[in-house]
Amino acid sequence: MTSHVFATYIIETSLPLARAAEMLAGEQSTGTFVRVERESDDVRARFAAQVESIHELPLTGSSALPGSVGDPDLRRRARLRLRFPLGNFGPSLPNLMAAVAGNLFEMKELAAIRLIDLELPQEFADRYPGPGFGVAGTRALMNRPSGAMVGTIIKPSIGLSPEELAEVVGDLAAAGIDFIKDDELQANGPSAPLAARVAAVMPVLKRHADRTGKMPMYAFNITDDIGRLEANHDLVVAAGGTCVMACINLIGLAGLEFLRSHAAVPIHGHRAMLGAIARSDQVGIAFGAWQKIARLSGADHLHTNGISNKFYESDAEVLAAIEAVRTPLLGLTPTVPVLSSGQWGGLAHATYSAVGTTDLLVLSGGGIHGHPDGAAAGVASMRDAWASAERGEDASDAFAASEPLRRAAERFGPVRV
Amino acid sequence: MTSHVFATYIIETSLPLARAAEMLAGEQSTGTFVRVERESDDVRARFAAQVESIHELPLTGSSALPGSVGDPDLRRRARLRLRFPLGNFGPSLPNLMAAVAGNLFEMKELAAIRLIDLELPQEFADRYPGPGFGVAGTRALMNRPSGAMVGTIIKPSIGLSPEELAEVVGDLAAAGIDFIKDDELQANGPSAPLAARVAAVMPVLKRHADRTGKMPMYAFNITDDIGRLEANHDLVVAAGGTCVMACINLIGLAGLEFLRSHAAVPIHGHRAMLGAIARSDQVGIAFGAWQKIARLSGADHLHTNGISNKFYESDAEVLAAIEAVRTPLLGLTPTVPVLSSGQWGGLAHATYSAVGTTDLLVLSGGGIHGHPDGAAAGVASMRDAWASAERGEDASDAFAASEPLRRAAERFGPVRV
Repeated sequence: MTSHVFATYIIETSLPLARAAEMLAGEQSTGTFVRVERESDDVRARFAAQVESIHELPLTGSSALPGSVGDPDLRRRARLRLRFPLGNFGPSLPNLMAAVAGNLFEMKELAAIRLIDLELPQEFADRYPGPGFGVAGTRALMNRPSGAMVGTIIKPSIGLSPEELAEVVGDLAAAGIDFIKDDELQANGPSAPLAARVAAVMPVLKRHADRTGKMPMYAFNITDDIGRLEANHDLVVAAGGTCVMACINLIGLAGLEFLRSHAAVPIHGHRAMLGAIARSDQVGIAFGAWQKIARLSGADHLHTNGISNKFYESDAEVLAAIEAVRTPLLGLTPTVPVLSSGQWGGLAHATYSAVGTTDLLVLSGGGIHGHPDGAAAGVASMRDAWASAERGEDASDAFAASEPLRRAAERFGPVRV
Repeated sequence: MTSHVFATYIIETSLPLARAAEMLAGEQSTGTFVRVERESDDVRARFAAQVESIHELPLTGSSALPGSVGDPDLRRRARLRLRFPLGNFGPSLPNLMAAVAGNLFEMKELAAIRLIDLELPQEFADRYPGPGFGVAGTRALMNRPSGAMVGTIIKPSIGLSPEELAEVVGDLAAAGIDFIKDDELQANGPSAPLAARVAAVMPVLKRHADRTGKMPMYAFNITDDIGRLEANHDLVVAAGGTCVMACINLIGLAGLEFLRSHAAVPIHGHRAMLGAIARSDQVGIAFGAWQKIARLSGADHLHTNGISNKFYESDAEVLAAIEAVRTPLLGLTPTVPVLSSGQWGGLAHATYSAVGTTDLLVLSGGGIHGHPDGAAAGVASMRDAWASAERGEDASDAFAASEPLRRAAERFGPVRV
């Protein structure tokens, strides 16, 4: 097996950069703190990770990681690319992670250590089929062949009885929504068990489909113990559901892959807890690297956040995340980027002009539930805005033409242009 | 269901502390960015997370997290305790995490946000049995009823052929070791597949057991896709193996729990990648909180690092980690703390005087493989040191009495007292 994996890191260190790079490569392949018997030059040659490149970067001013050692005045920052022999771990995602994202985060010689990208050989796609539905499969199931896919989140997040949930879903279906999802806080608790939610929601969606020929996709949050995922999935599918949602970091990337191996409907991949791994600029795994593993593991939809969101990410970071998810990966079926958090129609033109596609699932929670004229006006405001953006109009054209959008702006403005 | 979960965080914010605490509690229970229909006062009362206490702490001087907002001059730090109704998620570990460790890490109002402790009600132990073997079961299987359990890691980490591995294991067994583990980088790659390692190692261990009545415990690293864990485990058990190792963060805590539900031998829980989540003092999940989930998920052994280790953690942090793992949790079988990284006999007295127990698995890699007089002297040096410490002697007594320990000090010194 002569293929390789390339991993790119940002590091800071007070060691000479080349020395730190060699330590990192050694720690993650053949090394220990003393050279031992049977660690021959041949073993080192065949199994050692190699330093491909070191590109020095300016320091950012962020604090060194706790426990890092060395003279602070010597600290330097660099982008580092390492090459790992695939034969060390084989095309196994969990074992890949041991090499490229294992103990290295604990190295005291590193004042910053962040995995920012992975380049994987074809063997991974040979073993992992990736998304089973992706953009095309999702569009087909929700009967939305073109234009932005407009979705929403059940609000309030938790606390609705199954009967109230059915009412909300009925309203949203009547409003013309393409997609509805459970909140990540709503899974299988005793106050609203999954089975009760499925039993309440699916008849409403089916009646709507019988009347209109279109059934909104509902992503039931089936996150739970691994041993319950199949049964949860089967419960949704048996009731005619067309999507399951899983919090990827809570079942684990490996749990997602397990679910994928069983899934008969698209998997809506929520990224709750990602901030614990990805938010620091000094340690962890950046979204760009993480999303590749999530796609190989089978995420049909993947949350990227949206511009002007209520969380910490800048618009530039969000747009880079959407671009990352849309970048082809080893021939896999394309995953749908999911834009959410603070989304409303006034962000459509700015988003579209940056990403140039409507192969997006745009979730508007408060923006639809909280539209001054109700959910139907909320959905209309989103559709009007995205259709206008796709036609190449200015935002002002859309606002001139759309009453629901003007009314949305009264509550959610200002418009982004 | 009237039980509650208490979660403790360290936060920094430029908002008034009470306001930030309320935002965090709201985001993780009933909140969204606009109040919506059906979000009644009753819903808020039953489902909202409550702020239990706010204890201001001095700032540490660490940088604010990227994307945080607010006047830096107003920034304050606090320890915050929140109470979550168990009914929101039920005793499901993945769904617990959505509430206590989900989107909150992405809140831009927080310049630091770290989960440092969890207090869980008995319902979790009713659902999750925790370790199946723990301290007593591990001691019984390795026939080491008292004293520190002395172990080692196969070195070099990767690159040995099955035949070479068998030789190394034979040497270690002859040296009187209690426990041997694969490196976390050695799993099921094409260069040394698990099946080949098991086939090479187990006959050596069995022959040793036939001769001596004692079979060292070998922790085969079975980390892989979730769907392969059962087969990997069964392969080890069918060959007479007495332990499996899993990298908890790579199969996920949920993957560990899945493995536990099937396991017939102790699970050696490796913590590779934990630094990505736990190293920053500004974001993520501290070991103290994480280890509770790992124990509930069934880790019989759990890596805590050791003092004077080669990684970033201070001795105080390591000792706190060992203490955390040894602290009773909901009546679960006690998990074995695993001390590793740079461990040798000269650390025994300092460790024992701090932790006061030998219910520990102490792994010495280079310290045994690299002992100047070979592995048997390496093991003897560890046993001599720990037995002396347990007898209440000074380190100097042990060094006066033990040639293997004196020889170890020549290479691995200085001694910690």
